Amino acid sequence: MAMATDRQLLLSGRYLLTMEEGCPPIEEGALLIAGENIAAVGKTAELLQRYPQAPRLHTPHGLIMPGLVNVHTHAAMSLFRGLADDLPLMRWLNDYIFPVEATLSAEMVQVGTLLSLCEMIRSGTTSFCDMYLFAGAVAEAVEESGMRAWLGEAIYDFPSPSYGELENGLALTEELIARYREHPLINMTLVAHAVYTCSPALLIRVAKMARQANLPLAIHLAENEEEEKSCRERYGLSPVHHLEQLGLLGPNLIAAHCVMPDDAEIALLARRGVKVAHCPHSNMKLGSGIAPVDTMLAAGICVGLGTDGSASNNTVDMFAEMASMARIHKARRRDPLPVTAQEALHCATLGGAKVLGAEQVIGSLAVGKKADCIVLDLDQPHLTPLYHPVSHLVYATKGSDVLHSMVNGRILMQDRKLCTLDETAILCQAREIAQVVAQRQTAPVDNKR
Amino acid sequence: MAMATDRQLLLSGRYLLTMEEGCPPIEEGALLIAGENIAAVGKTAELLQRYPQAPRLHTPHGLIMPGLVNVHTHAAMSLFRGLADDLPLMRWLNDYIFPVEATLSAEMVQVGTLLSLCEMIRSGTTSFCDMYLFAGAVAEAVEESGMRAWLGEAIYDFPSPSYGELENGLALTEELIARYREHPLINMTLVAHAVYTCSPALLIRVAKMARQANLPLAIHLAENEEEEKSCRERYGLSPVHHLEQLGLLGPNLIAAHCVMPDDAEIALLARRGVKVAHCPHSNMKLGSGIAPVDTMLAAGICVGLGTDGSASNNTVDMFAEMASMARIHKARRRDPLPVTAQEALHCATLGGAKVLGAEQVIGSLAVGKKADCIVLDLDQPHLTPLYHPVSHLVYATKGSDVLHSMVNGRILMQDRKLCTLDETAILCQAREIAQVVAQRQTAPVDNKR
Repeated sequence: MAMATDRQLLLSGRYLLTMEEGCPPIEEGALLIAGENIAAVGKTAELLQRYPQAPRLHTPHGLIMPGLVNVHTHAAMSLFRGLADDLPLMRWLNDYIFPVEATLSAEMVQVGTLLSLCEMIRSGTTSFCDMYLFAGAVAEAVEESGMRAWLGEAIYDFPSPSYGELENGLALTEELIARYREHPLINMTLVAHAVYTCSPALLIRVAKMARQANLPLAIHLAENEEEEKSCRERYGLSPVHHLEQLGLLGPNLIAAHCVMPDDAEIALLARRGVKVAHCPHSNMKLGSGIAPVDTMLAAGICVGLGTDGSASNNTVDMFAEMASMARIHKARRRDPLPVTAQEALHCATLGGAKVLGAEQVIGSLAVGKKADCIVLDLDQPHLTPLYHPVSHLVYATKGSDVLHSMVNGRILMQDRKLCTLDETAILCQAREIAQVVAQRQTAPVDNKR
Repeated sequence: MAMATDRQLLLSGRYLLTMEEGCPPIEEGALLIAGENIAAVGKTAELLQRYPQAPRLHTPHGLIMPGLVNVHTHAAMSLFRGLADDLPLMRWLNDYIFPVEATLSAEMVQVGTLLSLCEMIRSGTTSFCDMYLFAGAVAEAVEESGMRAWLGEAIYDFPSPSYGELENGLALTEELIARYREHPLINMTLVAHAVYTCSPALLIRVAKMARQANLPLAIHLAENEEEEKSCRERYGLSPVHHLEQLGLLGPNLIAAHCVMPDDAEIALLARRGVKVAHCPHSNMKLGSGIAPVDTMLAAGICVGLGTDGSASNNTVDMFAEMASMARIHKARRRDPLPVTAQEALHCATLGGAKVLGAEQVIGSLAVGKKADCIVLDLDQPHLTPLYHPVSHLVYATKGSDVLHSMVNGRILMQDRKLCTLDETAILCQAREIAQVVAQRQTAPVDNKR
């Protein structure tokens, strides 16, 4: 409960959507925020009576809801947004992404992460799970923004532009884990890049580190046919069964993509308690396919929603991602029932929190949880009329409808003005880096494409 | 060319994208607008020299492009936005849409259309093709807004809440055609609702009217498996072959959806010069599937992009629709190549104009064409950095990035303020009508869904 000394704020609006199980939207609802925490949830009239002294932020046409949780992204890849699209995967990687990534610096990663943070805050995300290079620089950017994050340095067999030889990467990971162990907003994760970039021995070693540190282990898994095929060729097993054999499948594993698993593999992932990060835009844009998420949800797998990086999306807007999630499974099944708006919204909030093992802390608005929430402006043509708030949040809302954002009780955006980041300076720095990036790609920039 | 008496405006920005064949984005580009028309296109420096007296609207971080063309919508269905989602088609129609549509009035349709017009202008659409009830009321709303439109009264065998008996509907259509024959912005079309709601005799009759009036004929065609099945049961032919037998397939036919056609039917549609209105969001959300648009484009079919109505989308945002178009065909084919950003953008602009038979008038920015254009604000995190404008327009831009909109040389929105419509009053009226709508549906409003 709130301590007497905690700074209070009464946040009220036309609707309050808590995302607590079975709790419908509350009309004229409010939150009392005390310090970092939610101290009360209810009707505005009632909270005004109980807390008459609390300063108030009221949005008459506002909808208050939990901030969105992006469970898989590479924030700094915003620097490569639209650098190359509509290309075969190998040409995209070899001619554009790899040549540029090979010369990345910590400073570039920091600017790219700050750029994504601006966009994430503007579009309603309050927590994200990142895997990339120079995780220390990512953490510094996150700290500056006031956002909540799960971060990890990508580990693989070959040398990294970030840490050089593998052993340095593992040492860096240990160091970052120690540095951020007590941080209120930054959580470290282990990251094994994928089955096609990590040897079995490395996968086992990273998994052991994750268990010892009691942290999540993130990996790209069963993303496309190519990965499936190469894994079968090298190990005689599908990526899912390969990880099962190595003992990696467990409740701390966050498996990004999972486009390929068949029903038996889905049942196995469910039995092992593996968490899945669903990234529909990236899977579509790279031609990977559509993950069988309706089957996963039916099997009881905990699914969160992720945007992937802006090189393959090309934004980190979770509202757009949610809308696509609710639509594409209907197209795939030729059936209007799977996935419902309520299910997509759950995956983008409380489901995402569960993927990160943080459902006691964030993902819904309940007394004792951290105050991570956003306020949307409902007073707009595309959100009028309003019969069901949940329908609008998934099928009609845009990231640009977010008015205010709060993380851990601190306001990060108010009336669409960022409070913690110098957006003008960040955009300017990102444009300067982009000039360098454009020169480093080995293929010419084709302005007509 | 511009007449001496025409009001001039020099519209300039960071980029000018004309969408003329083979014309890359022009950096620091401008349009000279004279009255209703585009009088000059080129570098800003050059146009400033040639037209030093012209008043100027300059957007330093702006991208100027043709306004988007929405080739299939039911604008007034904005009143039913989010009324019911994630339901089997027949329950959706019988329990929600039909009971409400049965008691529609001209006034409700006018308000619903105005609501969609606010949203369309805000999200970059400058032309749309509508089919609905009370087309006269739709036309009045369009006239108030200053938007360009193709409109038609939906004709089918059973009595309509709009015109009553069929004969009245045909008479109303004739009357509207005569009334708007010389209108600068409003164009009438014939509308036969679908093969499952129009008898063969009625289809032939409406097609004849379209030919005599030299106007497009719009129809819903081959939308889903149910339509395909019922058409085969009743007529022994697929919907496409049914229309071929009745002589309806021709260059003036605008066929909305076309999810079902096989390769042979696509070849037939191409031979007959039929135009296709592709509506990916609606096809996904209703579980119809994904139209084989890459095959259609390869066959040379002229394809435009449509949002369908807001009861099945749930917005009329063409930028969101474009992004989905460029993504879903990649998912369907498990291939990152089809449909490219350039192709999706073409379908949403010049391709849409061709679908409406108006490519000499709108769809690209060229001297002599009507001044229908929009200006986007590029100075935002999700549009930074910028390597390729076309990539950003399709994969990153949101409707809310549109700053200014102009139709026929008249500014409809400047700095996101609507200039022709009273948005506050329209939202207020739409909310009042929604209360009536909520009472008329036969199923209870389930707030938890």
